Amino acid sequence: MSGKEENFSEWYNEILQSAEIMDVRYPVKGLYVWYPFGFSLRRQVYDFLRSLLDRDHKETLFPMLVPEQEFMKEAEHIKGFENEVYWVTKGGMNELDVPLVLRPTSETAIYPIFKLWIRSHADLPIRIYQIVNTFRHETKHTRPLIRLREITSFKEAHTAHATWEDAEKQVKDAVSLYKEFFTMLAIPFLITRRPDWDKFPGAEYTIAFDTLMPDGRTLQIGTIHNLGENFAHTFDIRYEDPEGKQQFINQTCYGISERCIAALISVHGDDKGLVLPPAVAPHQVVIVPIVFSDKRKEEVLDAACTLRRLLEDEGIRVVLDDRDERPGAKYYHWEHRGVPLRVEIGPKDLDEGVYTLARRDGRPKSKIESDKILDGIKEAFEEITESIQQAAEKSFRSRITGCSTLEEVETALKRGVARIYWCGNPECGHEIEDQLDLSILGLSEEEKEDRGPCIICSKSDARVSYLARTF
Amino acid sequence: MSGKEENFSEWYNEILQSAEIMDVRYPVKGLYVWYPFGFSLRRQVYDFLRSLLDRDHKETLFPMLVPEQEFMKEAEHIKGFENEVYWVTKGGMNELDVPLVLRPTSETAIYPIFKLWIRSHADLPIRIYQIVNTFRHETKHTRPLIRLREITSFKEAHTAHATWEDAEKQVKDAVSLYKEFFTMLAIPFLITRRPDWDKFPGAEYTIAFDTLMPDGRTLQIGTIHNLGENFAHTFDIRYEDPEGKQQFINQTCYGISERCIAALISVHGDDKGLVLPPAVAPHQVVIVPIVFSDKRKEEVLDAACTLRRLLEDEGIRVVLDDRDERPGAKYYHWEHRGVPLRVEIGPKDLDEGVYTLARRDGRPKSKIESDKILDGIKEAFEEITESIQQAAEKSFRSRITGCSTLEEVETALKRGVARIYWCGNPECGHEIEDQLDLSILGLSEEEKEDRGPCIICSKSDARVSYLARTF
Repeated sequence: MSGKEENFSEWYNEILQSAEIMDVRYPVKGLYVWYPFGFSLRRQVYDFLRSLLDRDHKETLFPMLVPEQEFMKEAEHIKGFENEVYWVTKGGMNELDVPLVLRPTSETAIYPIFKLWIRSHADLPIRIYQIVNTFRHETKHTRPLIRLREITSFKEAHTAHATWEDAEKQVKDAVSLYKEFFTMLAIPFLITRRPDWDKFPGAEYTIAFDTLMPDGRTLQIGTIHNLGENFAHTFDIRYEDPEGKQQFINQTCYGISERCIAALISVHGDDKGLVLPPAVAPHQVVIVPIVFSDKRKEEVLDAACTLRRLLEDEGIRVVLDDRDERPGAKYYHWEHRGVPLRVEIGPKDLDEGVYTLARRDGRPKSKIESDKILDGIKEAFEEITESIQQAAEKSFRSRITGCSTLEEVETALKRGVARIYWCGNPECGHEIEDQLDLSILGLSEEEKEDRGPCIICSKSDARVSYLARTF
Repeated sequence: MSGKEENFSEWYNEILQSAEIMDVRYPVKGLYVWYPFGFSLRRQVYDFLRSLLDRDHKETLFPMLVPEQEFMKEAEHIKGFENEVYWVTKGGMNELDVPLVLRPTSETAIYPIFKLWIRSHADLPIRIYQIVNTFRHETKHTRPLIRLREITSFKEAHTAHATWEDAEKQVKDAVSLYKEFFTMLAIPFLITRRPDWDKFPGAEYTIAFDTLMPDGRTLQIGTIHNLGENFAHTFDIRYEDPEGKQQFINQTCYGISERCIAALISVHGDDKGLVLPPAVAPHQVVIVPIVFSDKRKEEVLDAACTLRRLLEDEGIRVVLDDRDERPGAKYYHWEHRGVPLRVEIGPKDLDEGVYTLARRDGRPKSKIESDKILDGIKEAFEEITESIQQAAEKSFRSRITGCSTLEEVETALKRGVARIYWCGNPECGHEIEDQLDLSILGLSEEEKEDRGPCIICSKSDARVSYLARTF
C-alpha cells in the first residue's frame, strides 16, 4: 500500500477498494457503492449512534422530496443551498406541476409537520432523528465518504423547545452526545463555534466537530446548530404557553454523516490497512487454524470450531478462517480489514493448552492458557481500544501548533492545525483567511477561559481559535 | 373507530393517524411521514427481516440515482417503468448533462457493478440485499404504506448464480424465507406464479405472495423473480466456468416493501385499534399501576418499577405507564397501539401476591402469582401469537371460495378470493379477467398436484388458480 502520511489521497482510495469498503466505479460522479464489508462497518457505527440517540430521541422518517414552495420559504436557507440542490422536474413522460427538491437536509420537510404536531407547551420538547440519504449537486472534486452527491447515511436530529434556554441546553446535550460517539470511535476532535460567515444557513450559530486527517487537513465530522426562532417564524410554528399566550418555538438540529467512517478509516489506518476499535469492528476476532500437514488437521479444526462457538455465545463477532490458504495470506487479509485480534491455533498450542494471540495494534504476540481465553480476549479488547485511542490522540495533539504570527501559522498548517488567539472580530477573521488561504474553524468551545492577544489586532483578551486547511 | 369490515378504508386511515403510525398531511401527494411509534414498528419488523436475510445474504447500499443510459438498456424493463419514473434534470441552476432516474427498483443500478464483481465461477453465488427508498410517479389513487410515490422501506435482494438450476434453487429458498417472515407476522398468504402478462419487467417469471385485506381485496406483499440470463445479456455479465469458458450468469431478485406493515395492521387490527404479535410489537408489555388513593401509591409504584426492571433484564420491551390518568384511559391508549399484554398492579394484587394479566386478543383477565410472572408472560406471548395466527388464518380461509363458474366467482369476490381451475392458456386467462374486471393472481405454487376442469375451456388437467380484486 501507499504510505498514509506520504500520500494520503492515494492511500485512502486504495484502502477503500482493497478492503472492500466503497466501490468507486459507479457510473455517476460523486456516487459510490457500499461493499458488503463496508456496509457491515457502517452498521456497527450507526447502530452505536442509534443507541446513543435512543436514550432521549425518537427515530422517524420524513419524505425525501420537498416541494418547491416549502423549500423556498426560508431565504437564508435557500441561499445556502440553491446552487447545489437537485430538482426533479419530470414524472413519467410529463413535467411535474410542482418541481421537487431532493432534500439536501430536511428542515423544510420536517418543520411544516412540526407545525401540525405542536399545539401546546405540553407537546414540547420534541427530539427526533432520522438516518437518510441526502443530496448535493457538488461541483467541487468529489471523494467517497467525504464529498458526495448522495450522502447515503445522514443522521439528522431535529428538536423543538419552549425557550431559547431549553434550546441552549439541547445544544450542550448534543455536544456531549457527539463527544461520547467520537470518543468511542477513538477519533480526536476540536469543538469550535464556526465564524458567523460559515454557520449553517438559517441558524443563529453553529458548533462543529473537526478531526485531523493524515495529510494535515481537517475534516468536519459533526455540526450542531441553534436555530433560535428563525424557522419557527418562517413556518409559523407556535405553542400555547401555560399562561395561554402564543409563543414561537426554539429549535436545534444536528447532524453526522458517513464522514465519521472516513475519519475512522483515515485516523487509525496504517500501511497494512484498516485498524478498527473492537467496539465497531465488523469482525472482532479471527481464528486461524495452523495446519502444517494433514496429520492433526481435524483436531486443530475441532478446537477452532469449539472456540468460535464459545466466543459467539459471548456475543463476540468472530470469524473462523478455515480456507485452504497459507496462514500468512490469512494474516494479511484480516489485518488489512482491521480485525483487532487474531487467535492462532496450532498443534503445538494444543499440546501446551494455550492459544496464541496477535493484536492488530502491533504489540508482540502472546500466549494465553485455553481456559482463560474469554477473559484474555476481553482484556485485549480494552488494551487495544486504549492503545488506538492513545496513538490517535498523541498524533492529533502533536500536529496542533500554538502560533502568534501568520508566518508561524503558515508553517504549522503544513503539519496540521494552528492554535491562535482571535478577537472574534470579522475584520480580523477575514484578514487571516484572505492572507493565508485557510479556514478559521472557529473559537474553541472548550478553552473559553484561555485568553491572549489577537493575532491580527493584538487586542488583549482574544479567545483561542483554530485555523486549518479543510476538506 | 369505524368498523374494519364495514368500511375498511375509513378504518385504515383513522388508525394510521390515531395510533400515530403515518402522518398523511405531508404537502405532496403520495408521500407520508413515519411517526415515531410507526417507525418503531417498522424497526421491529425490518430488524426481523434483516435477521432472516443475514443468514446467507450480505447487506449493501447502492446509489439512488441511475443514469439515463443504464436505465435505458433493458427494453422490457424500461417499458415496465417508463411511465412512472421520476427524472432529475437540474442540479443547482443548471440542466444536467445526463438526466438521472430516481430508482423505481435497483436492477439497473446494481447490475453494472455485478459485471465488475464477477469474473469467475468462484465469485458465485452472490446474494446481497439493501433496504432503501424507491420512487414511482403513481397516477392512481395513492394510499399510505400501500401505494406510494416514495416507497420508504423497500427491501430488495439480488442474487447471481452460475446456472439456471442454481437460480431456481434460490427462488425456492427465497419462497421459504418469505414464508417464514410472513408466518412470524401471522399474515396469511397465497403463493402463486403470476400470469406472464403480469410478471416483473425483464423476468422469466414472477412468484408472488398475496394476503387478503378486510374489504376482500388482495394485497401483493412480496414478489420473487427469476431473471434468467435476461439482465446478464443486457449488462454483459459473464463468468469463466471451471473449463475456462465464458458463461452468462443467472439472476434472481425479490422484494418486500412497507406493504408488510399495511398487512400487519389491517389483517390483525380490530375496532379497538392495532393488534400486534408479541414478536414485533414495539411495546410487548405495558404495566399499569392501579392507584385509587394516595394511601398505597408508593408501594404500588415500587412494585411496578421492580417488575419493569425484571422484564427489561429479560429483554422484554416493556413500558410503565405511571402518568396521572385514569386506568381506563390508559387501557384504551395501549390497546389502541396493539400492546399484546397488560399487567395491572393494585393494592389488592399486592396483598394477594399476584399480578393481573389482560391480553389484547380478548381473552378474559387472569391472575398469576408474582414469582411466576416471567414464565407467565412468556406463556402468554406464545398463546397470543397462536390465537392471532389462528384468527387470521381462519378469517383468511373462510374468504376463499372454490368456484366452478364465473357467476360463482362474481359472488365469491365480494367476500374475498375465488379458487378455480385454469388451464394456464392466456386466452382463457384474458377471458376471465375481461369478463369480471378482476385479476388472476396466478397458478398456485403450493397445490400443483390438484387438478380439475378449466373454468373457461373445461380442459381437464387445469391447475388451481386464484382470482381476486387487488389493491
